[in-house]
Amino acid sequence: MWSTMQDVPLTITSIMRFGTGIFGTREVVTWTADGPRRRSYAEVGERAARLANALRALGVDSDQRVGTFMWNNAEHLEAYLAVPSMGAVLHTLNIRLSGDQLAYIADHAEDRIVIVDGSLVPLLAPVLPHMKTVRHVIVAGDADTAPLEGVGKDLHFYEDLLAAASPEFDWPELDERQAAAMCYTSGTTGNPKGVAYSHRSSYLHSMSAATGNGLGLSASDRVLPVVPMFHANAWGLPYAALLAGASLLMPDRFLQAAPLVELIETERPTVAGAVPTIWADVLRHVREHGGDLSSLRLVPCGGSAVPESLLRGFDEIGVRIVQAWGMTETSPVATMAHPPIEATGDDAVRYRVTQGRVLAGLEIRVVGDGDRVMPNDGVAVGEVEIRGPWITGAYVKDEDAGRFHDGWLRTGDVGTLSPDGYLVLTDRAKDVIKSGGEWISSVELENRLMAHPDVIEAAVVGVPDDRWQERPLASVVLRDGATTTADQLRDFLAEHVPHWQLPERWAFIKEVPKTSVGKFDKKVLRRNYAEGALPVERLT
Amino acid sequence: MWSTMQDVPLTITSIMRFGTGIFGTREVVTWTADGPRRRSYAEVGERAARLANALRALGVDSDQRVGTFMWNNAEHLEAYLAVPSMGAVLHTLNIRLSGDQLAYIADHAEDRIVIVDGSLVPLLAPVLPHMKTVRHVIVAGDADTAPLEGVGKDLHFYEDLLAAASPEFDWPELDERQAAAMCYTSGTTGNPKGVAYSHRSSYLHSMSAATGNGLGLSASDRVLPVVPMFHANAWGLPYAALLAGASLLMPDRFLQAAPLVELIETERPTVAGAVPTIWADVLRHVREHGGDLSSLRLVPCGGSAVPESLLRGFDEIGVRIVQAWGMTETSPVATMAHPPIEATGDDAVRYRVTQGRVLAGLEIRVVGDGDRVMPNDGVAVGEVEIRGPWITGAYVKDEDAGRFHDGWLRTGDVGTLSPDGYLVLTDRAKDVIKSGGEWISSVELENRLMAHPDVIEAAVVGVPDDRWQERPLASVVLRDGATTTADQLRDFLAEHVPHWQLPERWAFIKEVPKTSVGKFDKKVLRRNYAEGALPVERLT
Repeated sequence: MWSTMQDVPLTITSIMRFGTGIFGTREVVTWTADGPRRRSYAEVGERAARLANALRALGVDSDQRVGTFMWNNAEHLEAYLAVPSMGAVLHTLNIRLSGDQLAYIADHAEDRIVIVDGSLVPLLAPVLPHMKTVRHVIVAGDADTAPLEGVGKDLHFYEDLLAAASPEFDWPELDERQAAAMCYTSGTTGNPKGVAYSHRSSYLHSMSAATGNGLGLSASDRVLPVVPMFHANAWGLPYAALLAGASLLMPDRFLQAAPLVELIETERPTVAGAVPTIWADVLRHVREHGGDLSSLRLVPCGGSAVPESLLRGFDEIGVRIVQAWGMTETSPVATMAHPPIEATGDDAVRYRVTQGRVLAGLEIRVVGDGDRVMPNDGVAVGEVEIRGPWITGAYVKDEDAGRFHDGWLRTGDVGTLSPDGYLVLTDRAKDVIKSGGEWISSVELENRLMAHPDVIEAAVVGVPDDRWQERPLASVVLRDGATTTADQLRDFLAEHVPHWQLPERWAFIKEVPKTSVGKFDKKVLRRNYAEGALPVERLT
Repeated sequence: MWSTMQDVPLTITSIMRFGTGIFGTREVVTWTADGPRRRSYAEVGERAARLANALRALGVDSDQRVGTFMWNNAEHLEAYLAVPSMGAVLHTLNIRLSGDQLAYIADHAEDRIVIVDGSLVPLLAPVLPHMKTVRHVIVAGDADTAPLEGVGKDLHFYEDLLAAASPEFDWPELDERQAAAMCYTSGTTGNPKGVAYSHRSSYLHSMSAATGNGLGLSASDRVLPVVPMFHANAWGLPYAALLAGASLLMPDRFLQAAPLVELIETERPTVAGAVPTIWADVLRHVREHGGDLSSLRLVPCGGSAVPESLLRGFDEIGVRIVQAWGMTETSPVATMAHPPIEATGDDAVRYRVTQGRVLAGLEIRVVGDGDRVMPNDGVAVGEVEIRGPWITGAYVKDEDAGRFHDGWLRTGDVGTLSPDGYLVLTDRAKDVIKSGGEWISSVELENRLMAHPDVIEAAVVGVPDDRWQERPLASVVLRDGATTTADQLRDFLAEHVPHWQLPERWAFIKEVPKTSVGKFDKKVLRRNYAEGALPVERLT
């Protein structure tokens, strides 16, 4: 029996109509060197229609890709609304990528047009000749366009295009499973892989962000996405804000602690999302120079693990950080670490330092060796797999099915799930050590070792073992003059770690090799071990 | 370009798995004559699986309809989860309907089974012989089953069935557009009409209830649906609570003020939904006998207009009532009257006495004569039309397309929309007076007239007019001994009402005819006028 309900699709067009209609007096505020620049949602709606007309006139038809190379600002928001709603696909380019990566991504996505902020022209210009499918460049805001001469693209100015275009656009009826936006993962190995969000997935993700177990967004909120709009849609905050009728505060390129604190004091956001590094800077700034963050009722924080000290530091100034976890492939918000209502004080913090519980609509599980689903007992370790209407099921133009398992996404993260659904991540799948069918967290061993007063750095990697398949190798940097032995460190570990997890192989080195972004380069350690280049001592 | 996101359907199965899994320690509490009866969501999940097995064993296959004739309690919740999740269709029968209506509805829906609360057996038994498609009756809870003898149905006991059934059920993969539940409108004219909610519509409606502009439900809430589960799914509260991981408090048949206050004091709900009459009783009870309602953070109220005095009365005891509006055809919640954050005090009340703004996902408009869409200016009056993924697009087995207009539902309500989207209902469409292309609200004229000190009752209906198509006729009951004239009443109205709306036709009568539920019976007034049976005086 079929239902008799209306078959209305879940689209970004509907979010745009709702947010810029009923909530037309709400606003997007963009921070500038001269303070705030304001635009009502009603104006944003009209300008989105103008932008759609301008893009159509430049030949954007059906599902062509329109790239953006922009900060968080009102114009980027207009592109967020216009491009998907006209049936085209928004492709946010990550301004932090290398030229090679950018060229690869724009080519792979077949971007036809790129909208670029004036301040980012110098960064984009050298790459443009290598973006073969791009025909038009649209410059938003003031710019020195000299670097764009001779790049072989048609040059346009955003405001000129909008001024010349009609303020009415006949938005098409869209299929909710059509692609709305694209994002590429910044894969550390191999080429970046593309994810194509649908209207449906973006819509449901936004709705989820507005629920009480998400951010509880409402028309009473003012939302500050510090997290970039080229980064998994700024955690979905722009669409969620429009859907909730909440105003948006955009930091543009002013991402340092001082202007952020000024923005917060002036515009009084209620919700603000950023990675832990940014919030640590902000906290330090407030401690040193003062600053009123009291407007913030909720600070979603993710991208990397939130240190407990950061949570507690914000608690002290009366601002509540909630850890969130996700990835480009999960739209990105998958879990949020709201503690149960019963938990208070330190008990609550115990929940808040986890990755949290999945949002309604998603399912999560940990899967061990042989694709065995592990129990939710808070102990059994496995790779985290996730499923739901805003989770990626494949990559764009990519046949690699290895990241998917029976319709679930293999996240590449390793951890445990408690009976009440709290996820604790312990490792990346590629760094976990698989020993005799059990998994050993390299990160946990490292953290325990680094708690020893003589240890400056410690990196643990899995190395081949005839009997156990893999065993941990601990590479340790001692402080100058320390004489601690491997035996002593193993005894130190044994106080907290099960006996079977204790490393037999130890290497005392001068420094742990690092990647370009300062993370332990475990590839190098494994290679050095394989080549016999590490001074390994073996305990029995 | 199609998206690469997973194609996971939005189903009640998913709500059930989520709510009874991660939130398995949350509970449903059912009120009894001996106090609360508790059951964890984990148990509810297991019992729903048992119920599905039992229903399958009784022959419920594919999309057959399973009726419920029950109060709000844990067993009704189990049916809410099991029946749709097994692919069948839950049909909640309204225990307040007449036997004729019930028999008509059960036949029309082709109910195969009815689950009945023991306490309701005496009410259902006489109707059962007339429910031709029903083969099985399942009695939940203690009952005197004597009245069920000889009704010609197979009799079963709920607990016996569950005890004998397996606690595991292989829930099927469902299409989200499949019917999940049915509800019949209690049409005042003609036969009741059936609405078939889909899994998708129920899911989205629940998600919407959990957003900040809805009820902002989270796992920290305890939800008390006083509104019956046979009444448009108890405003969707049961599904929304499971989706939010919130506990449910069920009043069963204890709907009087005294037990409700006791339930609230004992179980401390944070959100509780009921019609204005119930809350007025509760407020009166608290004023007379005391009572602690302080656990309530939000009280959604609807079903009929919420009097300002009720809002203010609850404000005085620190409990926030939010008016909501909807109908069976809108799942039912369509609008909620949260005031804008800027509005405070009396200004906020001005917004709170409206029907509110639509929830994200829905579109609303007012449509005047000739199906002309009217401006959202707070003045232009028209019939309210609504569109969205949880709005009915047709009735079950019904060809009447008159209630639908270009894919929108004609609600039968008349009102205005403000520029910021607040809906104010002024009349039912069948009672509005269409005069010379403009609409006159009968309700507004009645309220104005009844504000006159000499007027006890006033009913206004439209009567045919050669020149204006329709004109208002005012039928007035004066207090004993009053000598107020039609001229004087017209002058009194003219202080507040535009001149063209003032009635020319007046009738002074002894009493306004009433329907069985005490509403003005305007059909009778129109007929009496047509037959010349009213003492009409005509002003010039």
